[in-house]
Amino acid sequence: MAEQKATNIHWHAGNLSREDRWRDLKARGATLWFTGLSASGKSTIASALEQHLVHLGIHCYRLDGDNIRHGLNKNLGFSAEDRAENIRRIGEVAKLFADSGSVALTSFISPYRKDRDLCRALHDKDAIPFIEVFVDTPIEVCEQRDPKGLYKKARAGEIKGFTGIDDPYEAPLKPELVLKPGVMSVEQSVAACLDLLRSRRIIA
Amino acid sequence: MAEQKATNIHWHAGNLSREDRWRDLKARGATLWFTGLSASGKSTIASALEQHLVHLGIHCYRLDGDNIRHGLNKNLGFSAEDRAENIRRIGEVAKLFADSGSVALTSFISPYRKDRDLCRALHDKDAIPFIEVFVDTPIEVCEQRDPKGLYKKARAGEIKGFTGIDDPYEAPLKPELVLKPGVMSVEQSVAACLDLLRSRRIIA
Repeated sequence: MAEQKATNIHWHAGNLSREDRWRDLKARGATLWFTGLSASGKSTIASALEQHLVHLGIHCYRLDGDNIRHGLNKNLGFSAEDRAENIRRIGEVAKLFADSGSVALTSFISPYRKDRDLCRALHDKDAIPFIEVFVDTPIEVCEQRDPKGLYKKARAGEIKGFTGIDDPYEAPLKPELVLKPGVMSVEQSVAACLDLLRSRRIIA
Repeated sequence: MAEQKATNIHWHAGNLSREDRWRDLKARGATLWFTGLSASGKSTIASALEQHLVHLGIHCYRLDGDNIRHGLNKNLGFSAEDRAENIRRIGEVAKLFADSGSVALTSFISPYRKDRDLCRALHDKDAIPFIEVFVDTPIEVCEQRDPKGLYKKARAGEIKGFTGIDDPYEAPLKPELVLKPGVMSVEQSVAACLDLLRSRRIIA
């Protein structure tokens, strides 16, 4: 049998409270929910914010199409039901990260108010900060950028149900933060996120 | 528009590599996958390990029935298909935590070798450490403990498909660690996990 080597193991029966966890880790969790049109700049800003926070030694993690659509949600398609389930799962996972003491950054179009509100409610229920960040780039700008040629395909009818073209984008009614990449640099957007995180005492 | 207050924002276009992330956070991620019969002691050990690591300032997070079955996986039942999907999603989420630089602890019976092997393969594919911890408590001991009265109900036929009674538990063939709570204290089991994490340089 394993000999007891560590003699200073610290624990008590039962679960660690979130309060104790965050205190010991010197961390506070939160979810920053980036929403906006395709090519609005969500991922560029979220990625820059993530890099900056990590560089400061702050645990944070970005959930985006790359690590979600090909992994956890690879069994979901683009039906209305699957889109809702896609966002629900992302909301649940972001909440777990935030509970763990990490700053979760989610970067998805998430066009429907109802789906985002459900994610907010999941967080509210457990008193975990949920910060909705509206990346407000006019569709004309997004369509001009069109880095993946998706708007072009949607205009040509090759993609159906494309947000902003033949499917609605429901802008947040009361987002905690509005970013306007059309007239703000990436640095300015990141700075606005950092200001908000500081003002809510999520980061020091 | 937001004025630029932070003038020292550090980032570069593109994604943060895992190497850079772990270096900046002074952390290494991994998944410790606890498997064993109901009432074998998985959650007690995982909870004690979690508390101890957090007390040392090491980001770690336990995924268990409490935070998964009522959240992310609340739309899954107990059919063979749903059980497999349950474990698959847990494996994907643990992998995200590990990638983020956290030590993910999963505490589920996870009775089928195929399902656990799939989770291991998910981690292997992306070179993220996956450590299978077999909590090897004889069924007689588990059944005697029976804290939730589940074995009693299963023996009485009130629960169908109960692992160890009328559904198989497939013990790991090559687990990285075997714990025997029948003859080891919780402290000894935690110490064995810590030794393994140290020997793999996941913690210092």
